[in-house]
Amino acid sequence: MDISGRTGLVAHLGYPTGSFKAPMIYNPWFEAKGIDAVVVPMGVTAEAAAATLPAVFGLTNFRGALITMPLKVLVVPMLDEVSTRVKVAGSCNAVRREADGRLVGDMFDGEGFVRGIARKGCRLAGASVVVSGAGGVGSAIAASFALAGVARLALHDLDSASAERLAARLRLHHPEVEVTTGPADPKGFDVVVNATPLGMKSGDPLPFDVERIDPTSFVGDVVMKEETTPLLAAAKARGCRIQIGVDMLFEQIPAYLEFFGFGSATPEELKALARIRY
Amino acid sequence: MDISGRTGLVAHLGYPTGSFKAPMIYNPWFEAKGIDAVVVPMGVTAEAAAATLPAVFGLTNFRGALITMPLKVLVVPMLDEVSTRVKVAGSCNAVRREADGRLVGDMFDGEGFVRGIARKGCRLAGASVVVSGAGGVGSAIAASFALAGVARLALHDLDSASAERLAARLRLHHPEVEVTTGPADPKGFDVVVNATPLGMKSGDPLPFDVERIDPTSFVGDVVMKEETTPLLAAAKARGCRIQIGVDMLFEQIPAYLEFFGFGSATPEELKALARIRY
Repeated sequence: MDISGRTGLVAHLGYPTGSFKAPMIYNPWFEAKGIDAVVVPMGVTAEAAAATLPAVFGLTNFRGALITMPLKVLVVPMLDEVSTRVKVAGSCNAVRREADGRLVGDMFDGEGFVRGIARKGCRLAGASVVVSGAGGVGSAIAASFALAGVARLALHDLDSASAERLAARLRLHHPEVEVTTGPADPKGFDVVVNATPLGMKSGDPLPFDVERIDPTSFVGDVVMKEETTPLLAAAKARGCRIQIGVDMLFEQIPAYLEFFGFGSATPEELKALARIRY
Repeated sequence: MDISGRTGLVAHLGYPTGSFKAPMIYNPWFEAKGIDAVVVPMGVTAEAAAATLPAVFGLTNFRGALITMPLKVLVVPMLDEVSTRVKVAGSCNAVRREADGRLVGDMFDGEGFVRGIARKGCRLAGASVVVSGAGGVGSAIAASFALAGVARLALHDLDSASAERLAARLRLHHPEVEVTTGPADPKGFDVVVNATPLGMKSGDPLPFDVERIDPTSFVGDVVMKEETTPLLAAAKARGCRIQIGVDMLFEQIPAYLEFFGFGSATPEELKALARIRY
């Protein structure tokens, strides 16, 4: 990959940068496909965001940005146009600059989850989904499920006000979806989603009562620490189909590529080319 | 070259970025030497400089910057510490961020010229030098000659006030050097430097009366358009040793590498690895 002054700059913005994985996924793919673009990590703290993000978005060779912690919420009011996904999620992880300079934002964290289970055969139209965790990733997943045409979304968060706020945003932008809040009871749901950090530390309680998950349910986890979290192991033992956290990462990248206008790719292709250093 | 969140970011700042060459020289060298750093072009106009440069310098993974047109003068007051070369040249083309966050600036445009002729066998200590052109590059070359220990510097510029200002800065910072201003007469000088744009367009007059250049003189040109400019061709015909413009480019990069703490390299090594796309 030869970076030149004509190379499209895709800034990977967040802090700390040490654990960023996107450059090692996107750049090998750009290289393989002969796309003259590069993902460059740029460390920006929350405190620096107000001055730094507009400056980066204004670089003349700026094409777009991947936005990560702690900037996903902060960036939203800096944009000219945002998708419904951003409005529902309340956060943004992708920014594109149009030819006329306008900044457009979208949110693909939830897309990765939803695309992943759809590709695994899960039918989304009319489905019922329970999501535990109404923080950033849970909100993004709920936003993508609503857009994908599910019939019912049940939301749970230890901070019930957080679940209520997400429910209100969903009802505003997706009146066609039945949205409820309450305990994390997976009984009777087609899709069961852990969007809490439970499972990152050994000894964490399970986010759901596994005994109440139907064997026909699809169970997904956002925790990326291990390939199979305790929740997924228990769900698998019950006969459920599952989705691991890393799938969400690779499944969302095709959505990003389309958003930036870099064509598309399959998660398998991206995974085969990725040069992630741990 | 795998860019990760731990890769040191060297911003190449200027506008327009289309003709930038540094990424195709530095990055292959970093790759060959296993240095985890990357030069990334970032287009910044003069109008955007005040807001953008401090933002870029504050990126948490920012290690340093190469500064080019139109920012070399604008950047100077943004720095915490600048070298004598910067003070004399009035401009800066390299910025390094120290561990404590302080921004240090230096100027290597002239270093490239001076290192190049020194490596070609030109003795600098006590030498007499005439420089035509007291703009950015001429000032940088004069600054580097003064630091290299020449005895006498004669400056010429069509804009005589510009030559006078450079002379004043030289006298302030290098009282040991005899500095004069006046016409571009090369007679009797050990080193003759064209730092004007004359030679970029065919039909340009020569910057010096070649008949008055001593055959023992060393003649260098900053014009990079052709390998051998009309001035250099005429000087060569008189028996002078010469230095082409591209040498200045490759000779200054080792100085940059040392400044950033990336070790050193020879211009030949850099040239062999460079992947410049024209």
